[in-house]
Amino acid sequence: MSQAPVNRQVLLKSRPSGIPQAEDFEIVEAPAPAPADGQVLVRNLFLSVEPAMRGWVSAVANYSQPVGIGEVMRSFAVGRVVASRAAGYHEGDLVVGMFGWQDYAAVGPEAIQRRIEESDLPPSTALGVLGLNGLTAYFGLLDVGQPKSGDTVVVSTAAGSVGSAVGQIAKIHGCRSVGIAGGPTKVALCLDEFGFDAAFDYKAGDLDAALDRACPNGVDVYFDNTSGPISDAVMKRLNVGARVVICGTASVASWDPWPKGPRVERHLLVKRARMQGFVIFDYAKHYAEAWPVLADWVRAGKLRYREDILDGIEHAPGAIAGLYRGENLGKRLIRIADPDQGAQ
Amino acid sequence: MSQAPVNRQVLLKSRPSGIPQAEDFEIVEAPAPAPADGQVLVRNLFLSVEPAMRGWVSAVANYSQPVGIGEVMRSFAVGRVVASRAAGYHEGDLVVGMFGWQDYAAVGPEAIQRRIEESDLPPSTALGVLGLNGLTAYFGLLDVGQPKSGDTVVVSTAAGSVGSAVGQIAKIHGCRSVGIAGGPTKVALCLDEFGFDAAFDYKAGDLDAALDRACPNGVDVYFDNTSGPISDAVMKRLNVGARVVICGTASVASWDPWPKGPRVERHLLVKRARMQGFVIFDYAKHYAEAWPVLADWVRAGKLRYREDILDGIEHAPGAIAGLYRGENLGKRLIRIADPDQGAQ
Repeated sequence: MSQAPVNRQVLLKSRPSGIPQAEDFEIVEAPAPAPADGQVLVRNLFLSVEPAMRGWVSAVANYSQPVGIGEVMRSFAVGRVVASRAAGYHEGDLVVGMFGWQDYAAVGPEAIQRRIEESDLPPSTALGVLGLNGLTAYFGLLDVGQPKSGDTVVVSTAAGSVGSAVGQIAKIHGCRSVGIAGGPTKVALCLDEFGFDAAFDYKAGDLDAALDRACPNGVDVYFDNTSGPISDAVMKRLNVGARVVICGTASVASWDPWPKGPRVERHLLVKRARMQGFVIFDYAKHYAEAWPVLADWVRAGKLRYREDILDGIEHAPGAIAGLYRGENLGKRLIRIADPDQGAQ
Repeated sequence: MSQAPVNRQVLLKSRPSGIPQAEDFEIVEAPAPAPADGQVLVRNLFLSVEPAMRGWVSAVANYSQPVGIGEVMRSFAVGRVVASRAAGYHEGDLVVGMFGWQDYAAVGPEAIQRRIEESDLPPSTALGVLGLNGLTAYFGLLDVGQPKSGDTVVVSTAAGSVGSAVGQIAKIHGCRSVGIAGGPTKVALCLDEFGFDAAFDYKAGDLDAALDRACPNGVDVYFDNTSGPISDAVMKRLNVGARVVICGTASVASWDPWPKGPRVERHLLVKRARMQGFVIFDYAKHYAEAWPVLADWVRAGKLRYREDILDGIEHAPGAIAGLYRGENLGKRLIRIADPDQGAQ
């Protein structure tokens, strides 16, 4: 029997109080595990990096149990099955699931989100536009935001992987899409690549004036990825019956101490508006409805995406902090092996 | 032709920036109007006093046009038709509608909410438990709050005319009702008269500890009449999927400058909770469904109410400010004539 390959793993070393930094993680080496009966051994190809990871390592009450100190960082990944002792999975299958920030994972079917069937699309899309990001935009906008044709849909972090999909799905549904992004490069991306009807740089000065120009008819749906001053400005422009989808709070560096902001009650009351929190995992039973729709939009060129690929697992520890600094353009991924490796 | 009777009218004299005070109004005398063709002349018996009046006289953008300076104060009232030139209305009919703070109003059918049919119940109930207050509790709790049997329903201003109805309707729907009120008298009223499962005095000290005791299983529905620190404490205890009905902001003395509070986004996100503003007038087409249900609950003793009746129109100017000081127990009304006067 050949020796087990080396499994590089990124462990959580300390619990961050705010945004996870490189020094909160450490990289160790261990032998790759052997799959138990009912498991597959997955060789990860792409690891995901996402804003929600801040919540996954936070000690503050959250929608999932925090990653323990000394544990492999929780993460979605795309990998190839290199050994299968689980019914229905075969060597060479491309799969996406909760495989962690590591080279190899021995997992049961419960950790596998799905087998990737879109062989005409790059496997990395399973972590972005066909993964949690695309699903988040799809269900958050359509189910919680309930856009109607002619509505003005505003989205923050609009050049990001969720925001860009929100803008494009809003357009597909006949809405006016308005993107808020940080810096001229991202604004240009919103307009030129993702087809927003209007987009502006929230760092460029007068947020109120920019919103007035971009939303002459007010705001019907606000897909909020940021909280903070951007949201405060949008809230003042809600139309009667508006829907605010609370998807993320990227602009809030820490919730300890708990930040204050302008009270929302009067906006909600006067405008009979709704703010609703949204966590994609609640929609797990409905993912399968969305994947073929999203894939067809990608094939038709109606749903474009960007990827920001870092090469090598050594980039993982600092990758979340970089995300919060806004240094990526598109879905941030870490490529840790040749995607064609092991293909049948 | 006999001389027109004197019509005492309460006019808005100045626009308050916060809570309307007695000096913002003046009482004048004019001859009672004659009804035009298609109108009735109503002799008001009871005038309503309600927290929403603060919004009706506010210059800040609101859900209705503000009352103009020099105009009769907008108000619901119960009155008797003393002359009719409108089809379907007859002398002696008891009606409720937007008749203003005055003795006499000449109005068309569009100002009449309904003819009072419950001859077995006091006519004043048409302004309270069978009026906007009962309707607000009914549609706000059931349609926006969507309580399920076994839910914990928390309501602020719980001894008030809306809050007490919310608590009782929650009980009728199999929920645990928790009332928050100001002072021991109101707390006793909640427990002894309105049957709340728990009630406490928000002025008595540790709000967090009181909520923990009253809501051992968290909060599923919060019917918010106050905003402010009471709401901030409740928001920390929302359960997954909780619904917050924003019905009023009684604890906020002024929105200029706009007050700040703890940000709600993280609560909403982590708990997939919803906050939604609610204005009863949006439900006007559905009122007729609720009246017989509310009236039957009143007759069955399941929906009890209190009234706080001031005698004489001279009490009107200061009545809103008194409401915000919490000096009333139950629905505040002003009786300006003998209710039996003119009965057929």
